[in-house]
Amino acid sequence: MSNVDAVDNVRALRWRGERLDLLDQRKLPQEEAWVACVTAGEVAAAIRRMVVRGAPAIGIAAAYGMALAARSGEDLAAAAAALGQARPTAVNLHWALERSARAVAGAGPDDRFAVLAAEARAIHAEDEAANRRMGELGAARLGERGAVLTHCNTGSLATGGFGTALGVVRAGWARGRVSEVFADETRPWLQGSRLTAWELQRDGIPARVVCEGAAPALLASGRVHWVIVGADRVAANGDVVNKIGTYGLAVVARRHGVGFMVVAPMSTVDPAMPTGAGVTIEERPAEEVLEWAGRRVAPAGADAWNPVFDVTPADLVDVLVTERGVVATPDADGIARLLDAPTVDTAGAAP
Amino acid sequence: MSNVDAVDNVRALRWRGERLDLLDQRKLPQEEAWVACVTAGEVAAAIRRMVVRGAPAIGIAAAYGMALAARSGEDLAAAAAALGQARPTAVNLHWALERSARAVAGAGPDDRFAVLAAEARAIHAEDEAANRRMGELGAARLGERGAVLTHCNTGSLATGGFGTALGVVRAGWARGRVSEVFADETRPWLQGSRLTAWELQRDGIPARVVCEGAAPALLASGRVHWVIVGADRVAANGDVVNKIGTYGLAVVARRHGVGFMVVAPMSTVDPAMPTGAGVTIEERPAEEVLEWAGRRVAPAGADAWNPVFDVTPADLVDVLVTERGVVATPDADGIARLLDAPTVDTAGAAP
Repeated sequence: MSNVDAVDNVRALRWRGERLDLLDQRKLPQEEAWVACVTAGEVAAAIRRMVVRGAPAIGIAAAYGMALAARSGEDLAAAAAALGQARPTAVNLHWALERSARAVAGAGPDDRFAVLAAEARAIHAEDEAANRRMGELGAARLGERGAVLTHCNTGSLATGGFGTALGVVRAGWARGRVSEVFADETRPWLQGSRLTAWELQRDGIPARVVCEGAAPALLASGRVHWVIVGADRVAANGDVVNKIGTYGLAVVARRHGVGFMVVAPMSTVDPAMPTGAGVTIEERPAEEVLEWAGRRVAPAGADAWNPVFDVTPADLVDVLVTERGVVATPDADGIARLLDAPTVDTAGAAP
Repeated sequence: MSNVDAVDNVRALRWRGERLDLLDQRKLPQEEAWVACVTAGEVAAAIRRMVVRGAPAIGIAAAYGMALAARSGEDLAAAAAALGQARPTAVNLHWALERSARAVAGAGPDDRFAVLAAEARAIHAEDEAANRRMGELGAARLGERGAVLTHCNTGSLATGGFGTALGVVRAGWARGRVSEVFADETRPWLQGSRLTAWELQRDGIPARVVCEGAAPALLASGRVHWVIVGADRVAANGDVVNKIGTYGLAVVARRHGVGFMVVAPMSTVDPAMPTGAGVTIEERPAEEVLEWAGRRVAPAGADAWNPVFDVTPADLVDVLVTERGVVATPDADGIARLLDAPTVDTAGAAP
C-alpha cells in the first residue's frame, strides 16, 4: 500500500497570498477558529501565545511571517529578530529564518515579497514531503502489528502536514502495522488529549489517551511495541530535545524492551550543538500548571516548575528517522553521516 | 527537635459522636466544604465519589461508617459489604472493616454502636500516632539537607492526621533536612496541585508543583535527594502498589541515584498477597481523564485508559518505612521480619 493512501485531514496553516491563517490550537478541539495574521509581529505573537505550535509548524509560520513583513514594508532584520525570539528552544525557527534571509539577500525591494512568499511555500511543501518520506521510512521499521505510544502532538497540526511521529503512526496504520495508538495527554497544554486525539479521530485511527503517570505501567504491561516521538532539536551527538515527558518514556521503554523511535526532519538536527546539555530549555509561567482554562486549580500563592522540554540521551534512542534516512542507535558518527548524506528529493513523495 | 513540633494544620475527618464529617476533597483548595454522613451508605458513597481519599483515611472513614450503621440499626454485614466495595485496591479498607467486625463480634445489640465508635476512634488515633512515628523514622534516614519529590497526596488529608510520605516531609522540614518540596500534580485528580500544595502551604513548607512529565528531568538535574511516596498496598515480597505514576518515578530515581522511600503503615502490608502482580488495579472512568471540572477537554467520542494505581517492584525501593520500623531494600524476608516484629506502642508518640 502506498503511503500516499494514509489519511490526513487536518491543516494548521493556510497561506492566503496576502495573509497567513493559523488554526488556533489553544481552542481545539471544542472550537475550530482561525487567526488571521497580516504582519510579522502578529505571526510572532501567535507563535509566542501558542496559537501555532510544533517545531516544524513554527518554522513554516515564521517563514510566512517574513513574507508578510516584506509585504507590509517592515524592516526585515527587525521582523526576523522578533520571530526568532518567539520561542527559544526549537531550532527549526532559526533554520527557517536563515533560509528566508539567504533567499531574499539578492532581491530588490520590489521582489522581496514574492521571493519570501515563494521561499515560505517551498519550506512548507518540503516539510510535508519530508514528513511523508519519514512516514514511509519509520513505518517500515515497525515490524509486526502492535500498539504504539506517542507523546504531545507531532501531527499535521505540528507541521506543514502529515506529521513527524504521527506521520509514522499514519503510515503504519495504513500499512496495518499499527493496531492502536495510546496518546500521552501531555500536561500542561494537553496537546495529546486536545490535538492528537482529535487528529487521529478525524482520520479514523483508534486512540486512547493516557495520563503521563500511566505510561510507565502501560509500557510495563507489554501492550505497546513502540514509543514514537518527535523532536524539537537533535544535537550533534544524537541527544534529543523534545516535549517535557519524553525522557521518562525513553528510560522506561528501554527497561521493558519497547522500541523508542524519534522522527524529526533534518531541519531539526543542529550540528552546532554538541550535546543536549547545551540547549536552552524554555521555562514557561507557573500558571500554565496551576490553572486550568483560566480557573485556578492550585491554592493561591502556590508555585510550579514548568520546563517545556527535556533531553533524552542518544543512547536511549533505538531509531532516529529523518527524510534523509534512518539511523539506528544514533551517535555522533551516525549524525555526521546523516549530515553528509545527499539531500533526498522528497518532492516526488508529495501528493 | 522533637517531631511533635512539626506543623500539621489540616484534618480530613471529624467524628461528631453521631455523624462523620468529611472534608470534601473534590472541592479543595477553592472551597472548604464538609459532607456530613449519618449512615454507612453515605460513607460508602463518599469513599466511592472520592469526597475522602487516601488509603488510611478511607479505612478510618469505613470504621466510622460501621459505627453509623450500628447507630441507625442497619444490617452490619450489609454495611460492611457496601463499604468494602467502595474502592477495590486499598487494603486498609478491608483491614479496618475486619477490625470493626472482630471488635463488635461479642457485643450485644445495645452496645454495638458504642463498641464500633470506640474502635473507629482507636483506629483513627493509632493511625495518626503511627504516622508521627513513621515521620521520625523516615526523617532520620534523609541524611543531608536537600529537596524531595512527592507524588499524589499522602498528608493529613489522606490519613488520620500528619500523613505518611508527607509526614516524613513534615518531620524532615522540622529537622532542617528538607529544603524544598516538589509535588507531582498527579493527574487525573490533581491531588498534588490541589491537596498537597494546599497542605504544605498551610504549614509554611515551600513547595513547587511539577507535571508528572517533568519529574524525570527534575530527577536527572540532581536537585532532588529523595522521592518519598505512600502506598495503597505492600505485597509480601515488598512490591508497592501506589497511585499511578509511582512506578515511573522509581525507575528514573534509580537511574540517577536518587533515594526512593515508601512510607506506609502496617495496615497497608498485605501478607496474603505474594507479589504486586496479584493486586486488582482499579480502573476508573475515561471521563476523569477526558474532562475537566465537567468540561470536555478531549474531542467527543475520544477514549482513555485510566488505571488508578501501578506496581513498583520491591527492588526499586531503597527504604520502606512503617510504624514498626524501617526496612532497607525490602524483600520477602524483610517484610516477614516486619510482620513478626512486636507491635510498637505508638501511642506514646501521639500529641
